[in-house]
Amino acid sequence: MTKEFRTLAAPETVRETIAGLDLGGGVEHVDLRNARDRVLAKRVDAAIDVPGFDRAAMDGYAVQASDTVGAGEVDPAVLDLAGTVHAGEKPTVTVEPDTCVEISTGAVMPPGADAVVVVERTDETEADAGEDTASDDTAIEIRTAVAPSENVMLAGADIAAGARALGPGTRLTPREIGLLSALGVDGVPVRARPRVGIISTGDELVPSGEPLDSERGEIYDVNTTTIAAGVEAAGGDPVVYPHAGDDFEAMERLLRQAADDCDLVVSSGSTSASAVDVIYRVIEERGELLLHGVAVKPGKPMVVGRIDQSGSDDDETAAEPSDTAQSAYIGLPGYPVSALTIFRVFVAPAIRAAAGQPEPTTATVDGELIAQQRHDEGRLRLLSVALIEDADGSPLVYPVDKGSGATTSLVDADGVVAIDPDTDYLAAGESVTVQLFDPAVRPPSLLAVGEADPALAELLDQLDRPRSLPVGSREGLRRLRDGIPDLAVVAGPTDRAVDAVELGGWSREWGLLVKKGNPDGVDGLADLVDDDIDFVNRDRDSGLRASFDAELDALADARGVDRRDLTAAINGYEATVSGVESPARRVADGRTAVGLGLRATADRHDLGFVSIGTQAVRLLGNPDREEKPAIDAVRNALETLQTVCSALAGYQFE
Amino acid sequence: MTKEFRTLAAPETVRETIAGLDLGGGVEHVDLRNARDRVLAKRVDAAIDVPGFDRAAMDGYAVQASDTVGAGEVDPAVLDLAGTVHAGEKPTVTVEPDTCVEISTGAVMPPGADAVVVVERTDETEADAGEDTASDDTAIEIRTAVAPSENVMLAGADIAAGARALGPGTRLTPREIGLLSALGVDGVPVRARPRVGIISTGDELVPSGEPLDSERGEIYDVNTTTIAAGVEAAGGDPVVYPHAGDDFEAMERLLRQAADDCDLVVSSGSTSASAVDVIYRVIEERGELLLHGVAVKPGKPMVVGRIDQSGSDDDETAAEPSDTAQSAYIGLPGYPVSALTIFRVFVAPAIRAAAGQPEPTTATVDGELIAQQRHDEGRLRLLSVALIEDADGSPLVYPVDKGSGATTSLVDADGVVAIDPDTDYLAAGESVTVQLFDPAVRPPSLLAVGEADPALAELLDQLDRPRSLPVGSREGLRRLRDGIPDLAVVAGPTDRAVDAVELGGWSREWGLLVKKGNPDGVDGLADLVDDDIDFVNRDRDSGLRASFDAELDALADARGVDRRDLTAAINGYEATVSGVESPARRVADGRTAVGLGLRATADRHDLGFVSIGTQAVRLLGNPDREEKPAIDAVRNALETLQTVCSALAGYQFE
Repeated sequence: MTKEFRTLAAPETVRETIAGLDLGGGVEHVDLRNARDRVLAKRVDAAIDVPGFDRAAMDGYAVQASDTVGAGEVDPAVLDLAGTVHAGEKPTVTVEPDTCVEISTGAVMPPGADAVVVVERTDETEADAGEDTASDDTAIEIRTAVAPSENVMLAGADIAAGARALGPGTRLTPREIGLLSALGVDGVPVRARPRVGIISTGDELVPSGEPLDSERGEIYDVNTTTIAAGVEAAGGDPVVYPHAGDDFEAMERLLRQAADDCDLVVSSGSTSASAVDVIYRVIEERGELLLHGVAVKPGKPMVVGRIDQSGSDDDETAAEPSDTAQSAYIGLPGYPVSALTIFRVFVAPAIRAAAGQPEPTTATVDGELIAQQRHDEGRLRLLSVALIEDADGSPLVYPVDKGSGATTSLVDADGVVAIDPDTDYLAAGESVTVQLFDPAVRPPSLLAVGEADPALAELLDQLDRPRSLPVGSREGLRRLRDGIPDLAVVAGPTDRAVDAVELGGWSREWGLLVKKGNPDGVDGLADLVDDDIDFVNRDRDSGLRASFDAELDALADARGVDRRDLTAAINGYEATVSGVESPARRVADGRTAVGLGLRATADRHDLGFVSIGTQAVRLLGNPDREEKPAIDAVRNALETLQTVCSALAGYQFE
Repeated sequence: MTKEFRTLAAPETVRETIAGLDLGGGVEHVDLRNARDRVLAKRVDAAIDVPGFDRAAMDGYAVQASDTVGAGEVDPAVLDLAGTVHAGEKPTVTVEPDTCVEISTGAVMPPGADAVVVVERTDETEADAGEDTASDDTAIEIRTAVAPSENVMLAGADIAAGARALGPGTRLTPREIGLLSALGVDGVPVRARPRVGIISTGDELVPSGEPLDSERGEIYDVNTTTIAAGVEAAGGDPVVYPHAGDDFEAMERLLRQAADDCDLVVSSGSTSASAVDVIYRVIEERGELLLHGVAVKPGKPMVVGRIDQSGSDDDETAAEPSDTAQSAYIGLPGYPVSALTIFRVFVAPAIRAAAGQPEPTTATVDGELIAQQRHDEGRLRLLSVALIEDADGSPLVYPVDKGSGATTSLVDADGVVAIDPDTDYLAAGESVTVQLFDPAVRPPSLLAVGEADPALAELLDQLDRPRSLPVGSREGLRRLRDGIPDLAVVAGPTDRAVDAVELGGWSREWGLLVKKGNPDGVDGLADLVDDDIDFVNRDRDSGLRASFDAELDALADARGVDRRDLTAAINGYEATVSGVESPARRVADGRTAVGLGLRATADRHDLGFVSIGTQAVRLLGNPDREEKPAIDAVRNALETLQTVCSALAGYQFE
């Protein structure tokens, strides 16, 4: 059914194989205004002197330095004013001995002048009467001596014509673009961006924005967008190909077309093994398979090879194999987190190298692992982890392991920790190095875990970059006990005591969601037991479920029966859903008659509601993190909720 | 002449004033494919369950978990195979007790099934003959027990409909875009990019790409490109306005137009004081002047204010002042380094805040100052500095102070050190914090200073990110003595001994550049002294000048005269230019008859050449940095020069 990989390549072998692929890397010419973040392909030498003329560096008077020898506050030199020159003007007057010319910063030094006296060291006065100078009536007292070239930037002093201005491989930031502008350059040769074709395979994938048929098991395509964005960030030019079926001919056509257009073709195998097998066959028959399977978790089913471009086998007898035009090919795993992890570790560096882009710096963070991590894979593990800051701002690290099929891991994790095959256990408290997904990644200001709640969502919106994991009250408490989050959000009765700081909270009315107008005449919990009514429950970790079960216990007590007798009689007691709105949606679309939920949710979905009780929602702070600024922000946000959440039916704020 | 600023605002006041400006910050809707690096304006809740169905998480067999109780390697359960379901298919078969269905990862769980047994723990076998099951002839041996939901991802388990997916203020990287794709979102509300109008003033400015009239003192406009690139990098939308003269009416029209179109107008004052004064008047008369002059070097002439939009004064009696529509205005200094520094420190953070972009992290480096720095300004100094790595990779810092008019400082510096007004002296060896111009800034692998040389340019092209400063041999040696560069490049005779590691070098033939065919019949150096020939010399720091002066000494000795007698007789001995090619260009365009230069330069410019001698070019390594990898790279590159530079006439490689 699935193909077993005979030998898995070592990560280093994969890197070397990919480094050996030709990913393009030609030269193109771009306008300077489109050159930001591009990489110079060739050295740029200055074609002109900058400045192109001897330039006044200060506002003042252009003089012959020899006329100022000995001048000072006590005994100023007096020079006749012969004229003025502004920036952007050609001087029309020459500085003869014993004369000067008023000059603006940036103006051309007039002939004869070799220095500038700054205006602050001068005074206007009247020229000596009766002298037969050529000047008007104004003279200037010069109260300082200047040396030749003082306050003058000589032609070419900034950069001389012919000088090496920028070397090949220079990344063009605003500063380099500024220097090129100064040289009059309006276009530059830059490294071409490798064209990367992106193909997602799998009959179940649907582009976002189109309708989804969940009964057929359709899901939205994630890899096309993430890999395209990743290619772009690495300096490549992504080309997205529409999905075109998993049979051999369709796949071959698609891969050939992409190979014709692109330097590199990246596919992400669908989760269906058949598509992977088809690609594997196409690469073997219409290209070259260099490597199949890598000893990394996740990412085992990676493929590296080459694909023949069209026409290269039109005349098989004539062409030597070495003449065959080929594009590089890399096959990624299908699960989004696996695909992006393998892309980031193995593919992005090769694209950056081909584009001439530097490897990003400071993309690692060392932190203390909060939770232990077992590892018995015998291969390199790239463990997805997330960061949270301790009270003193030092980074803490915890694993994010929701199964690689979970797309939320994409945003719930911040990077990976590489665990080598020989390590079988990482203890809590150990220091680990996190390779960040992006150099711009920062830990969230707050990690809140626990019960999902509409008022909580509003509270979080008021904080700066919080992260929240709606894992349910019970799981939230468990993680708080393990010291992971800053905050656990707990609703309803709890079965364990955890050392925590009470930050406050609110109460919410809960009960049964029914169709509008309550056509089944549901009165309360007992009807679910006694009547034949379809019900949808919440998962065991949810606080709503805890309150529901407590009410069932009370009913069992009242009836003198075991709770299990009651639950067995409820149609759908075990039909649990996660998500505070999920039961409401099922009632609304007729999939079930009754669901467990909040009055506020019934309101929002225009459903009927049968109240059972109210439950407290409490925010429990991690005692070790009470000093974090985000905890103050939570307290402040709590005070606004009364106003912010005034539309939430059944809510009471303290 | 220049306006003296009465009181200079403290930097904190400037920040607060700018923070009080309204820079836009609305909401716009973008397609997901254009959403990279944008910032979410509103929370995005999941509109669907992900997955939308109970989904097989592994390849294997969908079963009723209760059928596997007690199954193991020794005593497998045997279930009839009732069919198959692949990813992307609607199941057509129900899993009844004692049956199973082959299932692919990602496929919809068929009705009746509640768990998946992975294929590795199963075997195909034959169904018991004679049983009246509905299956075909195949049965499956199940060699492990599974619990309900094992290897199944329940609908909504990844993210449940209604759950908070991404909060407002989230920057959209490939990972967030992936999550949005998974939710079927194809467009998102993001923070609008503030529109920033950019105006460069100054009659002497010419856009790059157009011809330059140096006689009028024209220079290429640098600020428009650097500020536009800086606006873009900060998350703004730059709008460049063509320059339109420095008179009041033209400036008013231009500023009004920009104010009508943009949230913020940024001008960089030309170096001519008149333009600055005109803008100042326009802001005072047609807007609001909030602040003029800031106690920061560079940046003193900064202006912050508001500009009335058009029409707001059409009916001056009717409109209340508070109703006047205004755009924000910030005036930057004219010199490129000053303009970019002030933009980076004061303006970019405000644009980022309006765009919702996070402040970049890790944008500082602590390093040891190599050279002392005096400071007696009485105001905050943002000292431009550059980084170089010590042999052990630790950062060293040296000031880059070429005068703020130098555009090369844009790329020769890496950041600024803020020196507060009370500090009057930073000693060498002190630790300083460098605010990098960009988080991606890295120290160069090598800092080479000294003589400019065509072979050196080729050598540098072979290194990874070198920085070279063509300051001349003498200045190069001086800096090597001060311990700043990794490498000094020295040509010709030197007047001081510096402790250094000889890395190798080459020799180059030098002499007099003359017009093609040598129409003046120049024979050698003596002709410059004895005949009336125009000459252009090199600057005193250049190694060519040192060799030239040594030859003059020899001639003076031979004639029994003082050297000064000879130099006084040379037309243009004091007419020095920097740049190894500058004299050649002056001979080529007829500005002078003879220039000092290399045979290789004469060749390149198709000039005549009168040989005088050869001089050694030596690469002298900093003894403290011998272990740097770049020094090995220099040695390797030296070995290739014979080949790389074979076209350079008059060169001899060791």
